[in-house]
Amino acid sequence: MLQQTIQTIAPLNEEAMARARARQDQLTKPAGSLGRLEDLSVQLAGITGVLNPPLARRAVLVAAGDHGVTAEGVSAFPSEVTPQMVLNFLNGGAAINVLARQAGARVVVIDAGVAADLPEHEDLIPAKVAPGTANFAQGPAMTRDQAVQSIEAGIAALEREYRRGLDIVATGDMGIGNTTPSSAICAVLTGADIDQVTGRGTGINDEARRHKVEVIRRGLELNRPDPNDPIDVLAKVGGFEIGAIAGIILGAAARRIPVLVDGFISTAGALIAAGLSPLSKGYMIAAHRSVEPGHQIMQEHLGLSPIFQLDLRLGEGTGGALAMPVVASAVAILNEMATFADAGVSEKIE
Amino acid sequence: MLQQTIQTIAPLNEEAMARARARQDQLTKPAGSLGRLEDLSVQLAGITGVLNPPLARRAVLVAAGDHGVTAEGVSAFPSEVTPQMVLNFLNGGAAINVLARQAGARVVVIDAGVAADLPEHEDLIPAKVAPGTANFAQGPAMTRDQAVQSIEAGIAALEREYRRGLDIVATGDMGIGNTTPSSAICAVLTGADIDQVTGRGTGINDEARRHKVEVIRRGLELNRPDPNDPIDVLAKVGGFEIGAIAGIILGAAARRIPVLVDGFISTAGALIAAGLSPLSKGYMIAAHRSVEPGHQIMQEHLGLSPIFQLDLRLGEGTGGALAMPVVASAVAILNEMATFADAGVSEKIE
Repeated sequence: MLQQTIQTIAPLNEEAMARARARQDQLTKPAGSLGRLEDLSVQLAGITGVLNPPLARRAVLVAAGDHGVTAEGVSAFPSEVTPQMVLNFLNGGAAINVLARQAGARVVVIDAGVAADLPEHEDLIPAKVAPGTANFAQGPAMTRDQAVQSIEAGIAALEREYRRGLDIVATGDMGIGNTTPSSAICAVLTGADIDQVTGRGTGINDEARRHKVEVIRRGLELNRPDPNDPIDVLAKVGGFEIGAIAGIILGAAARRIPVLVDGFISTAGALIAAGLSPLSKGYMIAAHRSVEPGHQIMQEHLGLSPIFQLDLRLGEGTGGALAMPVVASAVAILNEMATFADAGVSEKIE
Repeated sequence: MLQQTIQTIAPLNEEAMARARARQDQLTKPAGSLGRLEDLSVQLAGITGVLNPPLARRAVLVAAGDHGVTAEGVSAFPSEVTPQMVLNFLNGGAAINVLARQAGARVVVIDAGVAADLPEHEDLIPAKVAPGTANFAQGPAMTRDQAVQSIEAGIAALEREYRRGLDIVATGDMGIGNTTPSSAICAVLTGADIDQVTGRGTGINDEARRHKVEVIRRGLELNRPDPNDPIDVLAKVGGFEIGAIAGIILGAAARRIPVLVDGFISTAGALIAAGLSPLSKGYMIAAHRSVEPGHQIMQEHLGLSPIFQLDLRLGEGTGGALAMPVVASAVAILNEMATFADAGVSEKIE
């Protein structure tokens, strides 16, 4: 399933992008003056093959999982918060629920590996690879098979939502401790220094952050993930929800659906996806730039420029939901604005 | 009318802000993890005095005016584009119309000084101070009385829209040549170097930009605007639409209505407003950071941090319209999210 998905992913439609660019230059504004909104409209044309793609059917797919590495004391919150927050998502009370409602998007949770039994719920996709990863400071976080299984959970979730009707998707994450594997993935796949890409997560102090850096350093020395093998990196120091996010992105790219990549954890998933399919990068839209210091390094590595810089550090897909109306506005600009000829407006003096 | 408006402007409601901050800390997320969205919700509470202000009645007020300084060849477009674009606004074909529709906002144009006769239209407020300013490279752009008149045109427009129903407003501008007076205002009121705050406007080349710097330098040497007298600065090197924008901001602050300040020209208006009433700064929300190099200097001078950084350089209120849903989302977060107690989620480990 993973190989088939990767093989399905095709380049962006250059012809549609050229048409979008040509139309942008005829609209009643100085050429290029809508900056990244223009780029977004061109990217959406390249993804969907049309200049006016429908964007009404929106979903935020929040992948959840627990982390054995929390035993090392890397997080400010206890692991029990992961299932508690999943219930909060299902009850509509979390930040992502509020922001998704504002954006007209549904919220669907994927249990990729929460360390608790969760109730049946129409908005919860059960796909538990295991009840939490193993502690990567003492051995690999998961087996290679489990890594593939977590990615395929994301692909399957995307396919399920595609069948329900899906024009644009945002990735989201929930998993206490998950900035730790994300920093580890970032260090391995971008080559950046561990200290430089390790932040405060949900709010640890200086001393705890230094400890977190040491835990990651120990985990990387012990497990020696192969930077040329994204599945090995995911297996050695990753997380089930991070694998699922990579799968959501690959699945979206295979279906030619634009995918808003949220914060630090989602972008770790995007690094795995891009490693497996460089073409998938064309389908990614960076929603925001997080406070986590490694986020900028990851985004630059992927060639992604964020829509927002709002000092968010919550995850859940919050930045992705916020960005959905901006993407819709970019497409509306391309389709609804008058041209210089239509409006009888004089063009630039050459 | 101007003095009365300035005297009406009061500080933000500290008690409501404290309540908003306290509630943010009880919501099911790590404290501070929604970054500037949290700050926005607190600011909105301070502006309106309540935690859940209505935000449904939205308007973009686009002030338009022409500029005598275009005789110096400072713009890439001819002045006739100003009235042509006003007609485009009234016909619904411009970028601001598209983005305002996406945001559920009405667009209202103020003719503060367009150098052409404009038709009667329900969405056009006739308030022409004069048919364009004088060329400030040869003398003052306008008289002091005209400067006050332009500000009062903005206040009156805000009052008109307030009577129609208004919860949030964005400023916008249209005026070929208006980055030139905006750079001049920026240099005088922030003390920055002219070259550093003068950009390409709608798209001039390097040589034309150097000429634009020289025109501004000549205008400032000739007119010697008093940096301690914002009305003098507006009169000597400003524009009618820039005065009107200052008036919109002052009027909004007097009515305790949040005002999204758009790009470079709108922020020049905000500098004038802040000079007349430092308290008005509390009511301003910076929508985005423009490509114009002086914009960041102005925003830092005003203590404003932008929501978007999308390389926009169009004006019209486009950034302000884009930001309206973000402000609404910030307020929704404060009011609709579950608290730790509501949701039975464990709090941070102390």
